Amino acid sequence: MDVCAVDLGGTRTRVALVSANGEVLARETFPTPASGSSGSAVADAIEAAVRRIAGPRPPAIGVSAAGPLDLRAGAIVSPPNLPYDRVELVGPLEAALGVPVTLLNDARAGALGEHAHGAGAGCDHLVYVTISTGIGGGVIAGGRLLLGRGGNAGEVGHITVETRHGLVCGCGYPNHWEGYCSGRNLPRFYAAEKRSRDPAYATAESIFEGARAGEPGAGRFLDTVAVLNGRALSTLVVAYEPERIILDGAVVQAQADLLVAPAVRRMERFLPLPEVVTSPLRGDAPLLGAAVAARQR
Amino acid sequence: MDVCAVDLGGTRTRVALVSANGEVLARETFPTPASGSSGSAVADAIEAAVRRIAGPRPPAIGVSAAGPLDLRAGAIVSPPNLPYDRVELVGPLEAALGVPVTLLNDARAGALGEHAHGAGAGCDHLVYVTISTGIGGGVIAGGRLLLGRGGNAGEVGHITVETRHGLVCGCGYPNHWEGYCSGRNLPRFYAAEKRSRDPAYATAESIFEGARAGEPGAGRFLDTVAVLNGRALSTLVVAYEPERIILDGAVVQAQADLLVAPAVRRMERFLPLPEVVTSPLRGDAPLLGAAVAARQR
Repeated sequence: MDVCAVDLGGTRTRVALVSANGEVLARETFPTPASGSSGSAVADAIEAAVRRIAGPRPPAIGVSAAGPLDLRAGAIVSPPNLPYDRVELVGPLEAALGVPVTLLNDARAGALGEHAHGAGAGCDHLVYVTISTGIGGGVIAGGRLLLGRGGNAGEVGHITVETRHGLVCGCGYPNHWEGYCSGRNLPRFYAAEKRSRDPAYATAESIFEGARAGEPGAGRFLDTVAVLNGRALSTLVVAYEPERIILDGAVVQAQADLLVAPAVRRMERFLPLPEVVTSPLRGDAPLLGAAVAARQR
Repeated sequence: MDVCAVDLGGTRTRVALVSANGEVLARETFPTPASGSSGSAVADAIEAAVRRIAGPRPPAIGVSAAGPLDLRAGAIVSPPNLPYDRVELVGPLEAALGVPVTLLNDARAGALGEHAHGAGAGCDHLVYVTISTGIGGGVIAGGRLLLGRGGNAGEVGHITVETRHGLVCGCGYPNHWEGYCSGRNLPRFYAAEKRSRDPAYATAESIFEGARAGEPGAGRFLDTVAVLNGRALSTLVVAYEPERIILDGAVVQAQADLLVAPAVRRMERFLPLPEVVTSPLRGDAPLLGAAVAARQR
């Protein structure tokens, strides 16, 4: 059975028609509407794209979106990367299109996508981690998505990994993995390590370029990043004891050679090490996971 | 259906006959055998106690034991608190008694016990944490015990909570919750905070007594402990998003007023706070959980 899948990001939205075996039969990408007096432009743009791709009577729809989500209300609440207080999704889309719409967090969707069609196929205990602007995660435990009381289990960007510097992440608290090692926060962590107070001291790109060019300062900093990433992955191992950890997200995709193996070398050998791999799905894991969620419902 | 439950600890072993509603119908406690050329004395002592309590044809048996466990082999492997390389349990007990024997980690058993008969009754998303010599944990997710690939999911003593001092815990790695806040390691953490190199600088008891007597040094130290405990509980919240966290173990039972509320005050309000409660089962959570495991099988 084909379904519609939507991956709603801060800058772009992707809408696709996806077959039962995870093949993308048609897709459309457009800038996420970020103006207007309310968030209704977002659901309107998704509705139009779904009609173009799947016709006037589309199949069930799964929507993956960056949180925070109110799953019961089917809405995004106070999104940090969109200029709206609230984006209603499930209600307007179901009313306009007359089909069931399933909303889930993009990192939880990524875990579902990997489990069904990517590096997690056949693996009943896995953790999916996406490192991009922020750090998110999703967990498959015993073959099923770990949800927690409200769908937020696996918010692994907010585990403690470092108490030096006291860097605060987007959630408002210090010491979290995301506060140090996400794409947005790496430059600030670098400046803190180098004792600079200049907020424009470096960009993530300049750090990675510097390391590739052999700059010792950048290289030493990435060694420190590997220590923190190794610690974070080790906490995931004792929390979930996965067989596999799948790394994804823009930062990992662009810099896998500088990030993945060095972090694995720093992992603690307390429990048997899981395999640590990068996503083979080229950024489509959340989109494919949204399709899985639509189909499961 | 009654079952037999065994809780095998480093110093004492408890054997009980437990009814389906969690009532302990008979119980016997004896020192865990810690001499002899092999670990076989342990299974022998359990077998004899089971026969005394349940007669010559006992019902199914659940055994809760401190790890590390080899669940496939039904044995304890290199236990830090017993003078044996290996303690075979499932094989010898099944052979001697002719009934199925189910082995599980004591903290995972505690979670099962609380879920069935304690503070977790009716709660499908909970984390059980035991703070005694070490720190262990067990997680109920969606009403079921979270196991991971080998039964070690929820080893929460080994999550990172503090990178100052670099204190190493029993697993050999630094920065873990257990390395700072377990009963065994609190005195070392206190000495590190006070910049003492004397390993006998304090005992856990003297620290708590000092705080109760109004000693500012001990009181400030317990404030720092609350920060770490709050951080650890916050990591559990983002990892599992539980409705309830249940605290148990000798240290919590003896010092609940100095440990629980101060830690809760330090928890991060990123996701909705779970209830944090102490176990009402007076140390019997693992024993009752062993009974649940025997019955489930």
